[in-house]
Amino acid sequence: MRIIVDIMSGDRAPKEQLLGVCRAAKQTYAKGVDFTLVGNEEIMRQLAKENKLDISNFEIKNTTEVLTMCDEPMSVMREKKESSLGVGLRALAAGEGDAFVSSGNTGALFCGSSLIVKRVKGIQRAAIGAVLPLTSPLILMDSGASVKVSDEYLHQFAIMGSAYMSAIYGVKSPRVAILNNGSEASKGTELQIAAYERLLHDEKLNFVGNVEGNKLPFDACDVAVCDGFVGNVVLKSIEGMGKLFSNELKTMFKKNPLRVLSYLLVKRGLDDFKKKFDAKEHGGAPILGISKVVIKAHGSSDGKAFSNAIRQAITCVNQGVVDIIAADAARLAEEKKRAASDEQ
Amino acid sequence: MRIIVDIMSGDRAPKEQLLGVCRAAKQTYAKGVDFTLVGNEEIMRQLAKENKLDISNFEIKNTTEVLTMCDEPMSVMREKKESSLGVGLRALAAGEGDAFVSSGNTGALFCGSSLIVKRVKGIQRAAIGAVLPLTSPLILMDSGASVKVSDEYLHQFAIMGSAYMSAIYGVKSPRVAILNNGSEASKGTELQIAAYERLLHDEKLNFVGNVEGNKLPFDACDVAVCDGFVGNVVLKSIEGMGKLFSNELKTMFKKNPLRVLSYLLVKRGLDDFKKKFDAKEHGGAPILGISKVVIKAHGSSDGKAFSNAIRQAITCVNQGVVDIIAADAARLAEEKKRAASDEQ
Repeated sequence: MRIIVDIMSGDRAPKEQLLGVCRAAKQTYAKGVDFTLVGNEEIMRQLAKENKLDISNFEIKNTTEVLTMCDEPMSVMREKKESSLGVGLRALAAGEGDAFVSSGNTGALFCGSSLIVKRVKGIQRAAIGAVLPLTSPLILMDSGASVKVSDEYLHQFAIMGSAYMSAIYGVKSPRVAILNNGSEASKGTELQIAAYERLLHDEKLNFVGNVEGNKLPFDACDVAVCDGFVGNVVLKSIEGMGKLFSNELKTMFKKNPLRVLSYLLVKRGLDDFKKKFDAKEHGGAPILGISKVVIKAHGSSDGKAFSNAIRQAITCVNQGVVDIIAADAARLAEEKKRAASDEQ
Repeated sequence: MRIIVDIMSGDRAPKEQLLGVCRAAKQTYAKGVDFTLVGNEEIMRQLAKENKLDISNFEIKNTTEVLTMCDEPMSVMREKKESSLGVGLRALAAGEGDAFVSSGNTGALFCGSSLIVKRVKGIQRAAIGAVLPLTSPLILMDSGASVKVSDEYLHQFAIMGSAYMSAIYGVKSPRVAILNNGSEASKGTELQIAAYERLLHDEKLNFVGNVEGNKLPFDACDVAVCDGFVGNVVLKSIEGMGKLFSNELKTMFKKNPLRVLSYLLVKRGLDDFKKKFDAKEHGGAPILGISKVVIKAHGSSDGKAFSNAIRQAITCVNQGVVDIIAADAARLAEEKKRAASDEQ
């Protein structure tokens, strides 16, 4: 197995990305895994020297350009095609590796994955699946890539999310729900109502109905499907609330000496608490529906977070997530064809 | 001033509602305010007796029916028109009071307000404005009433939310933002893009652009506008996250004796913390755009929460929120007319 890694993209690139891949390469899960680093060779060698990192076992693909957060998503196809992100994706498409990991511009990574690496046959739209660190892990499909979706897309998102949760988290028969403004089948817009019908009639899915926002954190489902607009707003709101609570707790503990003492007594618990809700601990978000494994690591990833994203990529390859999705997509296409011929 | 109060609707009605109105009536803010209680007179008199409550100063409108959470919203116009919710709204429409407060079925209260009490002239759609207890209070317009809205509705939601935050919270020139999946003007669907244009060109509004979910909790704006689907999901997600954090904290503090000690040292701070994020402390959500003041109290309101919702209704009447919204709506209509004649 070979993992292609974008060293140059991300708020803390290239240093943390380089630290991350070196960290990952030493772990048991990376035994027998080869790495290709994409980035400015000179800078990487210099960094490795400064930080006493051994990068002699890695293949290096030299690039001089970087695609930033300010670049348009489509720039990966045009003016920034020679960026580490663009070169990495083309190497993946050319079969030079099994997975690609990048902390770069989400939009560009999504567009580039769809247009360069291409979607799995039958999948109409890829989706970003952020895994929310709640009572139990939950994948939000889509987390922000496509603001406009159809009920058929949502059906495919459900299938891809199920495949992922089952392969990566070992969830048997993942519970799929539609994120909605009420629990009844009639709730939502035409989109949710039509998707409800579709999911209800897919016998291969463990569809548990609609889930409301207040139930989302309490293990109500393993996969929540929604359009990317709602997914983005909910994901970021949850992130923001986590930060707000953490800040408020800090302020509370600092208010007087007794509380500072209390803080010291409970510090480890609070650290665990913070860790539990920290996105960094949970690696990156898979871009599902692409014909190869693509993992979007958090933009602000440090070395540890980035190594977690690499681990995730390795697990996806080992578990054959893409093949599972391809088989499901073929089943859906087959069923659609049969339904169409039944109607005639 | 006379406030009409629905005593029979809500998870803990009629007891907590009756306690709430008695509690409110004793406060300074209710000096000179008269109350009309709508509900089953026999039950109310019995409850008053059992709880030693003096309800002799209240006018009573006897009703025997109750509209429940399971009833269809439109039932307030038909089979449940004699419910406390329906009778209260008709009394408000008939000019028998200045405001109506109910913990009842949100959909029915919204429909009934729009159809019985009627909207302010020029307002195309009323909205429910939940006030989120974050770093600073923030009104979410719409919080769940209308899953489908136009950019013109969003413009009116912005104006109504501004009027409310300015009148009730004393915010000078409230900052209005569109809840969106990115900060740039080009973000979102056609709805958000068109609304951006509208808000940007309204010189009377303090439009601060788009706000993302992760910025929402950190005093980024005073009014956030969105469709009711997104509003509902975000509002409930925030509620759910609050509950999750509170549960996790409890578990953490109970883990060992030292932590229990720590908990005792910090208990008051934690109580304040919980209080800060407790919707009950913040009264109810106004239904804005209606020609009279209507306050939706939380379904699970206890007496204290319900009295807070009554206080909110009194403040709305005192501050003339409806008149302010009517003047703004007239201005918008005037500007629309002028723009149309300019185009000819």
